[in-house]
Amino acid sequence: MDDERYMQFALQLAELGRGQTSPNPLVGAVIVKDGAIVGQGAHLKAGGPHAEIHALRMAGDAARGATIYVTLEPCSHHGRTPPCADALIEAGVARVVFASLDPNPAVRGSGARRLRDAGVEVVEGVLASEAEHQNESFRVWVTEKRPFVIWKCAATLDGYIAADSGHSNYVTSEAARDSVQQLRSQVAAIAVGVETVLHDNPRLTVRTSAMGETISDQRQPLRVVFDSRLRTPITSDILSEPGETLIYTTDQGCRDAGPEYVSGLEKSGAAVVPITADEDGRVYLPEAFADLAGRGISSLLVEGGSTLVSSLIDRRLIDKVLYYVAPKFMRSGVRAMKGKPTARMAEALVLDRVTYQEVGPDLLVVGYPRYDEKPRWWLGRQ
Amino acid sequence: MDDERYMQFALQLAELGRGQTSPNPLVGAVIVKDGAIVGQGAHLKAGGPHAEIHALRMAGDAARGATIYVTLEPCSHHGRTPPCADALIEAGVARVVFASLDPNPAVRGSGARRLRDAGVEVVEGVLASEAEHQNESFRVWVTEKRPFVIWKCAATLDGYIAADSGHSNYVTSEAARDSVQQLRSQVAAIAVGVETVLHDNPRLTVRTSAMGETISDQRQPLRVVFDSRLRTPITSDILSEPGETLIYTTDQGCRDAGPEYVSGLEKSGAAVVPITADEDGRVYLPEAFADLAGRGISSLLVEGGSTLVSSLIDRRLIDKVLYYVAPKFMRSGVRAMKGKPTARMAEALVLDRVTYQEVGPDLLVVGYPRYDEKPRWWLGRQ
Repeated sequence: MDDERYMQFALQLAELGRGQTSPNPLVGAVIVKDGAIVGQGAHLKAGGPHAEIHALRMAGDAARGATIYVTLEPCSHHGRTPPCADALIEAGVARVVFASLDPNPAVRGSGARRLRDAGVEVVEGVLASEAEHQNESFRVWVTEKRPFVIWKCAATLDGYIAADSGHSNYVTSEAARDSVQQLRSQVAAIAVGVETVLHDNPRLTVRTSAMGETISDQRQPLRVVFDSRLRTPITSDILSEPGETLIYTTDQGCRDAGPEYVSGLEKSGAAVVPITADEDGRVYLPEAFADLAGRGISSLLVEGGSTLVSSLIDRRLIDKVLYYVAPKFMRSGVRAMKGKPTARMAEALVLDRVTYQEVGPDLLVVGYPRYDEKPRWWLGRQ
Repeated sequence: MDDERYMQFALQLAELGRGQTSPNPLVGAVIVKDGAIVGQGAHLKAGGPHAEIHALRMAGDAARGATIYVTLEPCSHHGRTPPCADALIEAGVARVVFASLDPNPAVRGSGARRLRDAGVEVVEGVLASEAEHQNESFRVWVTEKRPFVIWKCAATLDGYIAADSGHSNYVTSEAARDSVQQLRSQVAAIAVGVETVLHDNPRLTVRTSAMGETISDQRQPLRVVFDSRLRTPITSDILSEPGETLIYTTDQGCRDAGPEYVSGLEKSGAAVVPITADEDGRVYLPEAFADLAGRGISSLLVEGGSTLVSSLIDRRLIDKVLYYVAPKFMRSGVRAMKGKPTARMAEALVLDRVTYQEVGPDLLVVGYPRYDEKPRWWLGRQ
């Protein structure tokens, strides 16, 4: 079917913006007239033109009477740019085919309505689930006012992420580590627990883009440290790398560390943000995530700290898992998560929509935690 | 190349005997004359005709001047059947193409020599590595006088084989469990540690063949229990299931259990075999394996017991790993192996020649442990 074929192309165009548009969604558009493509565009940067505008500019007069395929419902409101629905009407586009509705409940459907009111034929829902998958981060950010959280882990077949000594160079192959670099280039922020900073002193920078190009300093994802007791060393590598670092702590953490330590961290380039403490005295994660969302962070890659990862899963805050498995056995070592003693296999947290992909000698398992089947007690003390 | 094409067909024919020929190898043969297949055969059962004989019978007079493709060097010695090399010479076969040499050092190359001495053209080594892989069990049994040992494990992504309670129904999907049934139908024996018998009371029987047919009682793999202190309950399911059960224990185990208990086990149908104790008072595995080889057991599927699996790996006695991974996280539970504290990632036991295969929602990882890179201290107290 032609509509699906052109929409598929629009989805591919949208991918060009991956990692560049945050907090905006990925959007692609194709304009077709008399069986020929007369315009195409993708949204490439927040504040820049929307995909439809790029495509209209390319089409020029040919847009009159044409069909536009766009992966997201055209907007009808003035944001940083004028509404796309108006531009489409003005250009004389005859038919608008879009994939997914705007996820924002406040404006959802209003773009389609405005177009229909102006006499434009509108078809919605073509490859909707593909488009929703493409903007899974944006959708969570808009509807839940928090970043979409991806947990990345690299472990042996028997589930160890490091030797008992903490040594972890390397669990996986170079190919898998390159794949993590690509992953980092596609998210707005990267988070670790303070234990990871203390033990591994990671840099958490992106060295190359998905295309293999060197990443500019401006494109570095925000680095986030969850550090309830404010123990991040002022000499940490994350503070001297290009890009910004945000440290979430608690009031108690600031008091314990003392004002000189806080200002020392800030002089080293970090922003120190105190957050309400939870019942364990740790940073209350939902509040920190709301703060991140407010800063326009729509996707957060969590790279570790078993305390952080365990808390996130307990609070059902991990949306997606990227689990690299190296085909080896460690037999004894450090594990990725903490857990309470289990009685039955049904207590396991199952992944949905799982895909397996070979990465060099290793395997990448991608899936989405199925929390809804978990009984209430599974959540623990919340 | 025609030689490879016909050899590929002979390898496929050989597969028909999988699980039926122990301790004999799988062998397939194809006879070709003037570009047409005039005979074909496979070895199907120890004591039955070899593949070449089946193929010669089918070809009849057409074998004269023909080429035979056979996956293993034709034998030149009188075993349970007369030598195939003689039969090929007698039938007037002009050319013999075989894949792998006989792995038995005492007869290796003598079949080829006998054929050449009689004026037959001989080509060896066509698809040799495929043929060696096909008979990996037989080769270890012949050259090392022990069964080829396959460890099968089913675990969560984070490496748990059961809940802390021991509950393990089920780690993997029905599709993966069906796949284990097929695996069992292809081995000569299945082994567990006594702890597995005590906790899980497994039946360890094959219910259907790889083809999906019901397995006859005669075809049940031998069940083997490693039970140093002779604690197998007389009421265990393995003792009442069709097929035979062998319990390896120690003299001390027999003394501790007492002669009445031993004769009770034997009356229930088990064979109780005392073996030298190792330095930990456990069954000395190399001696038990030599005993199994003497009973014609060329392949052994180890299904668990973390003590048994750990000992086997310590002694470098696991040849192949079949590791089923379910895409879920248990966070706390029982682990497949024991190990000493580790200092560096390089201490991991790496799998070679790894393949990944989806089985329903789960994944099957197949590989071969790379022991040769392990330093000496890795072996522990041996």
